[in-house]
Amino acid sequence: MPLASDTRPRCSIARTMQVLGEKWTVLIVRSAFQGDSRFSEFRDRLGVPTDVLSTRLTTLVDAGIFERRSYKEAGSRERSSYHLTEAGSELKKVLAALSEWGTAHRASEFGPSVLYVDHNSDEVSVEFVSASGATLDCADVAMVPGPGATTTW
Amino acid sequence: MPLASDTRPRCSIARTMQVLGEKWTVLIVRSAFQGDSRFSEFRDRLGVPTDVLSTRLTTLVDAGIFERRSYKEAGSRERSSYHLTEAGSELKKVLAALSEWGTAHRASEFGPSVLYVDHNSDEVSVEFVSASGATLDCADVAMVPGPGATTTW
Repeated sequence: MPLASDTRPRCSIARTMQVLGEKWTVLIVRSAFQGDSRFSEFRDRLGVPTDVLSTRLTTLVDAGIFERRSYKEAGSRERSSYHLTEAGSELKKVLAALSEWGTAHRASEFGPSVLYVDHNSDEVSVEFVSASGATLDCADVAMVPGPGATTTW
Repeated sequence: MPLASDTRPRCSIARTMQVLGEKWTVLIVRSAFQGDSRFSEFRDRLGVPTDVLSTRLTTLVDAGIFERRSYKEAGSRERSSYHLTEAGSELKKVLAALSEWGTAHRASEFGPSVLYVDHNSDEVSVEFVSASGATLDCADVAMVPGPGATTTW
């Protein structure tokens, strides 16, 4: 949904980082891709403080990245689980781009902890692709002002 | 350079967000792609508080994303300018992925403030590409444990 106010940043990166600009938020989304949906699953995988996790899950629901569902196990109260929406699912490419850069430029001696693979289990990459379908190097892509450009951001 | 310590996150997204996980850091990098290199240029474009800008520039130099150079204008003291390294330049794809997602899912009524174009000025996109060169939808890409995987992150 378009943001109506003129006071919101024109820059879509800035608007995205209003939601994602924080380590835990991105890692919670990554954990959802790995199959986590319950509060305890996110907490146990990430070791994120529970008050931070609770706040971030609400932010992610409000931003339309997660949807909240209810579940109830025998003998327990009803609880919420959190599931990627369609918009959330499309963050896979953002995570893959972050992951590729980190693997190349902030490498760990252990190798990548997550691989992005196709249905043949072959690794895929994130690339700039032109309208004609050609893969382009970063150096062949220019950033130019768009319709929402201002002199600031 | 690989990080040696076992206490650093195995997840390359986490290691990347240790540097980028903050709105201003990402926007300072974006401004560098738009041609800014001087403290005053970043400050004036972004309106970022000067103490924050100073800290973030040092972080970006320490992370190997910017390199610091000296310049001196007549009648002024020597000052530093900040330029994207090769590693920094490769963040263009990360910015484009963030921008695409933000344009699609956190749209502004003004349209994109930055476009990513090829040498014909045609817009390019960021895509998952298989080893054979095919473009894949997010739904056709799985995230699976890599060599550095643990049960946590």
